[in-house]
Formats: sequence, structure tokens, C-alpha cells
Amino acid sequence: MLPEVLRVSADSKPKAVAGALAAVFRVRGSVELQAVGAGAVNQAVKAIAIARGFVAPNGVDLVAVPAFTKIEIEGEERTAIKFLVTAR
Amino acid sequence: MLPEVLRVSADSKPKAVAGALAAVFRVRGSVELQAVGAGAVNQAVKAIAIARGFVAPNGVDLVAVPAFTKIEIEGEERTAIKFLVTAR
Repeated sequence: MLPEVLRVSADSKPKAVAGALAAVFRVRGSVELQAVGAGAVNQAVKAIAIARGFVAPNGVDLVAVPAFTKIEIEGEERTAIKFLVTAR
Repeated sequence: MLPEVLRVSADSKPKAVAGALAAVFRVRGSVELQAVGAGAVNQAVKAIAIARGFVAPNGVDLVAVPAFTKIEIEGEERTAIKFLVTAR
């Protein structure tokens, strides 16, 4: 089963995340990316831009809705950015 | 005349950028944000999330399309991220 939420870190490779994003999107019709910190948010944004190119030949126009969310990391509450990625 | 493109830096205040974004959106119906570097991209994403709340009471559901773009800074070409922000 493909995950609904893809966690992105500052070390994530945007092209690899884009591939996972496109794969989950094709199965589920939407994907959520989660990122904590500027480096991770930057990689997530690049991944979305790249994934748009992966699915565009199939007539899919991906858009992102960014939002704040709270997640727990090692017992501490952190503010994360989540991106809900869907087709327009 | 309001600018079509808002440049966001790592030092930009997300809430201030969100206010400018909402103001330009109300006049033009779309806005482009440009950011160079992870810190700037992060502030731009936060600004979009906040701006969604500013316009949502008017029935507007803002979405973002991230893309790569080249811009010139002090004579050098840099890769920037642009966000085209429109209503869904």
C-alpha cells in the first residue's frame, strides 16, 4: 500500500520525491507532503515542480495547497508545512 | 500600480508578504512570488498559507503552482522558484 503522506527532509532528493509523489498521485488522486524546516520545505517545493512535469503529459495539472500543521518529533511538537497536491 | 511579481527573501515577514499577496490578488486575480534559496522559498510558502486565510472568507480557495525560473542577480544567473498563485 502506498503511503498517503510523504515526509520530505532537507536531504531528500527532489527528483526521487517527485517520482514517489507522481506514483502515489496516480493511485490515490492526491498526495500530502510534509516538511519541517526551510531546507525540507525547499526540497518539497522542487519535488512538486518536477512532479508537475511527470504527470503533465497525461493531461494532469498539479497544484499545491500549503498549510501549517503540528507534528510530533521525538516527543516534541513541531510546526510543519504540509502540501496537499491535487489535480486542477 | 501594484506589482505582478512579489520578490520574497529569507528576511521577509510571511504575514506582510501574505498581505501584499492578497492585495495584488484582489486587483489582478493572480500573483507571482519569486524566491531564491531555501530560506526565501520557506517564507514564500508560509505567506501563501497565511494569504489563503485572508481571502478564504470571500470564498476564494488559493492554490499555488511552483516552477523553476532563471533570474539575474548582480549580473549572475540564479535559479529561482516562482509560485503562480491563483484561485481554484
